[in-house]
Amino acid sequence: MPEEDFVVTPWEVRGKVDYDRLVQQFGTERIDAPLLKRIQKHTEELHPLLKRGLYFSHRDLNWVLDEYEKGRPFSLYTGRGPSSAMHLGHMIPFLFTAWLQKHFKAKVWIQITDDEKFLFRDFDTLEDATRVGYDNVLDIIAAGFDPKLTRIFFDTEYIRHLYPLAVRVAKKVTLSTAKAVFGFDASNNIGQIFYTALQTVPCFLESIEQGRNVPCLIPCGIDQDPHFRVTRDLAESLGYYKPALIHNKMMPGLKGLDSKMSSSHPDTAIFMTDTPKVAGAKLRDAFTGGRATVEEQRRLGANPDICSVFAYYTYLFAPEDPYWKRVETECRGGIRMCGECKLELGGHVMEFLKEHQLRREKATGQLEKFLVRD
Amino acid sequence: MPEEDFVVTPWEVRGKVDYDRLVQQFGTERIDAPLLKRIQKHTEELHPLLKRGLYFSHRDLNWVLDEYEKGRPFSLYTGRGPSSAMHLGHMIPFLFTAWLQKHFKAKVWIQITDDEKFLFRDFDTLEDATRVGYDNVLDIIAAGFDPKLTRIFFDTEYIRHLYPLAVRVAKKVTLSTAKAVFGFDASNNIGQIFYTALQTVPCFLESIEQGRNVPCLIPCGIDQDPHFRVTRDLAESLGYYKPALIHNKMMPGLKGLDSKMSSSHPDTAIFMTDTPKVAGAKLRDAFTGGRATVEEQRRLGANPDICSVFAYYTYLFAPEDPYWKRVETECRGGIRMCGECKLELGGHVMEFLKEHQLRREKATGQLEKFLVRD
Repeated sequence: MPEEDFVVTPWEVRGKVDYDRLVQQFGTERIDAPLLKRIQKHTEELHPLLKRGLYFSHRDLNWVLDEYEKGRPFSLYTGRGPSSAMHLGHMIPFLFTAWLQKHFKAKVWIQITDDEKFLFRDFDTLEDATRVGYDNVLDIIAAGFDPKLTRIFFDTEYIRHLYPLAVRVAKKVTLSTAKAVFGFDASNNIGQIFYTALQTVPCFLESIEQGRNVPCLIPCGIDQDPHFRVTRDLAESLGYYKPALIHNKMMPGLKGLDSKMSSSHPDTAIFMTDTPKVAGAKLRDAFTGGRATVEEQRRLGANPDICSVFAYYTYLFAPEDPYWKRVETECRGGIRMCGECKLELGGHVMEFLKEHQLRREKATGQLEKFLVRD
Repeated sequence: MPEEDFVVTPWEVRGKVDYDRLVQQFGTERIDAPLLKRIQKHTEELHPLLKRGLYFSHRDLNWVLDEYEKGRPFSLYTGRGPSSAMHLGHMIPFLFTAWLQKHFKAKVWIQITDDEKFLFRDFDTLEDATRVGYDNVLDIIAAGFDPKLTRIFFDTEYIRHLYPLAVRVAKKVTLSTAKAVFGFDASNNIGQIFYTALQTVPCFLESIEQGRNVPCLIPCGIDQDPHFRVTRDLAESLGYYKPALIHNKMMPGLKGLDSKMSSSHPDTAIFMTDTPKVAGAKLRDAFTGGRATVEEQRRLGANPDICSVFAYYTYLFAPEDPYWKRVETECRGGIRMCGECKLELGGHVMEFLKEHQLRREKATGQLEKFLVRD
């Protein structure tokens, strides 16, 4: 099926994803210039992930801003399925959510789905999933959340507060719906089939805590959208607003714009605990839009449009437009060679990792400020 | 299908149940005379429900007794899906389990499945199911459990201790298995499909509390057996013993031996909170094996083999064999008329209800001795 040569589900992203087609298939809306302008009214600067298109799609974001502008704040909900150490790709939703929190003073609910990752992956024990989750939480806290406005919880630990609502959700989702949305078959286990009920619940936690209906905005990878289509279909029947969404594309791996960051291939991604030496080596081996020879590149210029290294500048490491433009111009103009460009990016990445790792270290002493259990 | 004209699932018992066929279909074992004798070694008297055949089937009960006789105690697990006020039929497993507890000094775990009853029935809210559960718990405590050896818990309240293990269970149960065992189809909701994982967990709670493997015996209606077939298939892979089971038939309703006690038809059952007047009126209208006229009955005798009233003597209200035998002989001999027999049973029932209602009243102040929540 050449027309459908990619697959995007909450548990699998395969093939070269056509995001335009995905927007159409999923029925979401593109983030356009007027919407960006509207966000910017409240944030002054736009986050590079937003203005440079990694956050590209949404549902009901205009409504959330309508409410906000009427003085009704919204909550944010995002999460992490703990399957491995975290890399830059995993950090995207947290970096972006922390930025939204800062600018909109929004309460953030962060779900650690240790149950999901045990049910869907080959962890030998549930404890392994929980343990990896605790490691991940350090990176999440290091993304810069405000402890007063942030609640991080593990499904298995916070379940007393999740399960009664999950049961109400589950009663409204037929097996037929779950099969249609997630593609389950007879070989799926019954925990996998139930799980989406638990992913729905955190949308409503702020409303429960406040005792009144509070809009919820979910920054998440577009692959998670199917869960929230289910949520949106039933939210109002439970007395809550439909959650709004803002979707990111998969940030490309180091092996080209269509490559994925993969925990099982560590050279495809910068991990948050990589040493400068390891990170530097990965960048040195990254795929670029460079020419076969230095001479040719000086003469013809390189191509940032296919370059993993330039993508990293774009999304995270060149927040100032003039600098970002200069990198691009020098690249296209044959002034900037790939080696030096990688070294320069390496400097930014190492600075970023150094600061992250300091915050991560500090986070070990802050867990209790962020975690809710009972 | 005349050969399969009855249905027994955890959620539906329909038609005239052929228990012999059920034993064969489900692959359980009959409780036979040697097994009764073996139990009696430890209990001196046999409970009427046991010696008169309402408890009729089992799995691995001999093994539980083997272990017990080697000095390794077992735990008991039973439960209640709170759907209405409790009647005598609902009390059967609790009366019997309390008797087992007393004679074997066994820890009892009692699960109140408020989640299940919300998922499978038309409660408007989950709170309704929990509320009815709290009312039912009073009757359960009144069955005579030892507070030091009994833990009663609600699924929604104790979930922190149930869910992590339920997830481990759920990972081992495919949708295919759930469909085959329970007959689910695409219209079932995903909570119903997951639920069996929660019904499995309490088998293992005593092992978890003790930190070592403890055999578990489950007294339950034969209709609940499908859940525990699933449990038994996976128990050992989780490191636990397969639970043993002892099954009761459905105690007949007041409208004949094939009639069911039904909460929606209150005249079919004695409810635990019935007043003497109400209970008396129900017994007066009960189906008997009597003849058309007094004269005929004096001449030909009545038939206790088809009589609801005699069944009540048999299972609960004539524990002493000589008395029970006398009732039967007088009935068959035309000496005992149905009216007086009902009045006599009424006396026993009212005495039983009076004592139960006193214990029930007392139970309101004992909830905290029995309930575990966190």
